[in-house]
Amino acid sequence: MANKAPLVATLLLSCPDQKGLVARISQFIFQQGGNILNLDEHVESEEKMFFTRVEWSMAEVRISISEFEKEFSELANAISAEWEIRYSNDKNRLAIFVSKYEHCIQEILWLYSIGELNAQIKLIISNHNDLEYLARQYNIPFHLFPVTAQNKFEQETKELKLLSENRIDTIILARYMQVLSNNFVKEYPFRIINIHHSFLPAFMGSNPYRQAYEKGVKIIGATSHYVTEVLDEGPIIEQDVTRITHRDSPKDLISKGRELERSVLVRAIKYHINSRVLPYGKKTIIFE
Amino acid sequence: MANKAPLVATLLLSCPDQKGLVARISQFIFQQGGNILNLDEHVESEEKMFFTRVEWSMAEVRISISEFEKEFSELANAISAEWEIRYSNDKNRLAIFVSKYEHCIQEILWLYSIGELNAQIKLIISNHNDLEYLARQYNIPFHLFPVTAQNKFEQETKELKLLSENRIDTIILARYMQVLSNNFVKEYPFRIINIHHSFLPAFMGSNPYRQAYEKGVKIIGATSHYVTEVLDEGPIIEQDVTRITHRDSPKDLISKGRELERSVLVRAIKYHINSRVLPYGKKTIIFE
Amino acid sequence: MANKAPLVATLLLSCPDQKGLVARISQFIFQQGGNILNLDEHVESEEKMFFTRVEWSMAEVRISISEFEKEFSELANAISAEWEIRYSNDKNRLAIFVSKYEHCIQEILWLYSIGELNAQIKLIISNHNDLEYLARQYNIPFHLFPVTAQNKFEQETKELKLLSENRIDTIILARYMQVLSNNFVKEYPFRIINIHHSFLPAFMGSNPYRQAYEKGVKIIGATSHYVTEVLDEGPIIEQDVTRITHRDSPKDLISKGRELERSVLVRAIKYHINSRVLPYGKKTIIFE
Amino acid sequence: MANKAPLVATLLLSCPDQKGLVARISQFIFQQGGNILNLDEHVESEEKMFFTRVEWSMAEVRISISEFEKEFSELANAISAEWEIRYSNDKNRLAIFVSKYEHCIQEILWLYSIGELNAQIKLIISNHNDLEYLARQYNIPFHLFPVTAQNKFEQETKELKLLSENRIDTIILARYMQVLSNNFVKEYPFRIINIHHSFLPAFMGSNPYRQAYEKGVKIIGATSHYVTEVLDEGPIIEQDVTRITHRDSPKDLISKGRELERSVLVRAIKYHINSRVLPYGKKTIIFE
Repeated sequence: MANKAPLVATLLLSCPDQKGLVARISQFIFQQGGNILNLDEHVESEEKMFFTRVEWSMAEVRISISEFEKEFSELANAISAEWEIRYSNDKNRLAIFVSKYEHCIQEILWLYSIGELNAQIKLIISNHNDLEYLARQYNIPFHLFPVTAQNKFEQETKELKLLSENRIDTIILARYMQVLSNNFVKEYPFRIINIHHSFLPAFMGSNPYRQAYEKGVKIIGATSHYVTEVLDEGPIIEQDVTRITHRDSPKDLISKGRELERSVLVRAIKYHINSRVLPYGKKTIIFE
Repeated sequence: MANKAPLVATLLLSCPDQKGLVARISQFIFQQGGNILNLDEHVESEEKMFFTRVEWSMAEVRISISEFEKEFSELANAISAEWEIRYSNDKNRLAIFVSKYEHCIQEILWLYSIGELNAQIKLIISNHNDLEYLARQYNIPFHLFPVTAQNKFEQETKELKLLSENRIDTIILARYMQVLSNNFVKEYPFRIINIHHSFLPAFMGSNPYRQAYEKGVKIIGATSHYVTEVLDEGPIIEQDVTRITHRDSPKDLISKGRELERSVLVRAIKYHINSRVLPYGKKTIIFE
Repeated sequence: MANKAPLVATLLLSCPDQKGLVARISQFIFQQGGNILNLDEHVESEEKMFFTRVEWSMAEVRISISEFEKEFSELANAISAEWEIRYSNDKNRLAIFVSKYEHCIQEILWLYSIGELNAQIKLIISNHNDLEYLARQYNIPFHLFPVTAQNKFEQETKELKLLSENRIDTIILARYMQVLSNNFVKEYPFRIINIHHSFLPAFMGSNPYRQAYEKGVKIIGATSHYVTEVLDEGPIIEQDVTRITHRDSPKDLISKGRELERSVLVRAIKYHINSRVLPYGKKTIIFE
Repeated sequence: MANKAPLVATLLLSCPDQKGLVARISQFIFQQGGNILNLDEHVESEEKMFFTRVEWSMAEVRISISEFEKEFSELANAISAEWEIRYSNDKNRLAIFVSKYEHCIQEILWLYSIGELNAQIKLIISNHNDLEYLARQYNIPFHLFPVTAQNKFEQETKELKLLSENRIDTIILARYMQVLSNNFVKEYPFRIINIHHSFLPAFMGSNPYRQAYEKGVKIIGATSHYVTEVLDEGPIIEQDVTRITHRDSPKDLISKGRELERSVLVRAIKYHINSRVLPYGKKTIIFE
């Protein structure tokens, strides 16, 4: 976006439900000079929780961002809210982790190159050098960290250092074929996005297409989720499916799955970088 | 809903876009004691129009509905808005028009009988008596108005009188095989819902499945829309499609189409009776 | 179908793959005077098995059905085949098992009444009398067998006797809320069709919509399968899915699920009664 | 495929329906030593036409291809058939026509590079040089033919010469933004595949996404079809759709449409190059 584009702020907020929340939040923004562009909210009635996403123009806000946030935090405290505001001039900084499959990262880099991803891809990390050519083609720094059972801790430590130096916000596992340690995962809560090639919770673990083939399902799926300490169990961001028949061999499932995986992962990334995901317990709320 | 259920109000509003609309509207509701349950809005950026749907509890509103609406109309005038508020104790009053096909009305009556339709079905009008048995089965008044080229004006006049006496809000054409006159249509602007058995604007007019068969399309559809003076051209509320192959005969298309038609029509009805549709020009905004 | 409709035979056959199978089978039918209307085949290349479905007109076959089958069995023995031929004048005889949910049986009975199900519905069995009114409405014998832990064996014995007396081919569990004993299941191998309200193998067991809600999946499904001795593990015949969001309550899932369940179950029944399903190991081959 | 892979032949055949066609054709192949791998057929009952696709191994066929075809033509003549046999060692030779949009050709070239397209891409023709970089990246000859109203005939003549010299079987219009002359189209009957960015027959002609936006449809589509002399009217090979809402701007439709277009075009190409399409009148039969 050019420097001249008006600054837009996006709030994600959750708190116990009570009367007047929408009015108080929208009134606060209005009084500071903000012009609300989008407001979406949801009340989880079983647990009486309130969730909202608000997008507004900062063009006529007369105070600084830090003052704005300071004043907003008083309102937020009064309603016991957890919240985050992101600004359009501070795009999500992404690191992409890959191994040998190119279909997901290729899609991400292409969409990025044509301006369809509202983020900054800062670097690519891989345990193999097979996809270095793609990094070069799209001019993104590529870092090779071969991982073995022996050097895993050491390599992850180096990776964490590199991510930290690059102030990475979000890690995308674009068919990265290594399980990250809990130690690593804890550093990026709700900030590591994985693509699993099945319709979770069906077919967790390895080789889900083989599992699907042997079970004889008539539909296969892909699931993008946040990574938590329990493998393939993190909050689901997006899923999709496609139909198969007895004519499809395991190889055909892999081929059909490629289209699903890249498209589900890209949708999940878009939701995340556009502040449309509010994780809540084991689930997510997606403000489309 | 039992008498004790709290009264809920739903506003549909459109006006030229300007700063602070969400804040002003939500603040107004809050100040009257209303508790916002849902708020959705949309800005049509090409034409700078603002659209919103707000749902709130009236339980703690201290003034009467007529006072509430009087005060709200001042705000609405100030922002040049068109608006309507509906209340949960005043459900949409429906008339269903049918001819000989039962699949749509059968679905409507069944869902109504299990409490899935938030409306009152007051009567059924038909130009044939084939489906009178369904009206009896579900205990809804059935009125027969056989229509010919000669008696059309006369019969429509009687129908309008009946509709008026029953204070009908919305007319559902559940595969009604007669074209309503412009005179009739004008009485119920954006209040007559039709189901057309094609993916409009493809295959307007009669026998769309035959047209689809002859064209050799790989997918067929159904479209629910408001009826306007131009046949099959009114604002679309909902559409859906299903896949077909060369193996499907015209008879198979009709069979597959039945499932589409009833499901698309029911979804359109639900959007309408739950105040989720804002017609705008030739289109609709659907607040899901 | 009227008496005059030409007799059509449908063969389902599986055997180890070898050269010339299609030629031998089609040549045999041709030589007996049969006119092949449809032929579909599939080779499972991993296990080198051949599967075929052939439909032909018997109008000009000059020998009797029993002679035809005797001669065919010689060919079948020569290729070590398992096979079954069904004839269009001997429609599948169905028993429907239900409990309290009407959506599946209602769909089945309606489609049956308009001639969309190529079968004979001989009787309905239920452990409750809630749906007796539907049986009466469509004029199908209704049998009440209340089941408790104590009387289960006894009641199943009576049910089996009734099924046998009515020469039932296939049992449809249309949301029947009782688990059949292994003893019962063994009597109808690949002849009991169940509908499970999840995308199996996800969410086996009870209350799958609640499980789906708590897991936060973005898509729900329904699965129709043959009943085997292991609960919810039988060969899958058909599946379908629909999208949900965080706005959908458990009640909404049930409502959206109803449409899925009835439509998936009906498709599975159609495949089965039209001899389009060949169970193979834990899977099915569906000749569409 | 390596030289050692067994030769596979695929027949596409249509003729007036009569008794014994499957038997005669399969018997012929069997007697020549062919092993049928797949056989699919269809009878268009309205017009009493028979269509079949048969795939068999030539490994043990003892006569030459030309002898085989000569003998087969006698059978074909006897049943008044139109037919074509293609062999696995003689893959379709493709020319891709493009203008400025990369999404379709990029998908085609990537899938080709990973062995997912059973064809030979011999050359790329464009009226602009924007996508020459892709041709270089995948090492495919690129030919620039800028077209104006004045030079169109001359340029098409050169293109036809180039296509002929390269013995091109099939032309893929991967969002080629020029209308080919009738003169050109006649040279490649049912051998030019186009992708149109709408659900035909809705929104023919230019700017279909704009048309869809203004009509307010709830679903957009893409259609791949053979090019005939009437614009956007040729036999449809494949279609698909995706859901949109009022929130989608015309720019969003273009973005969502890209995924549809590339995926529908690739599916159509796969059907064509794998001899799965039988054009018939204004329609196609797709043997999946």
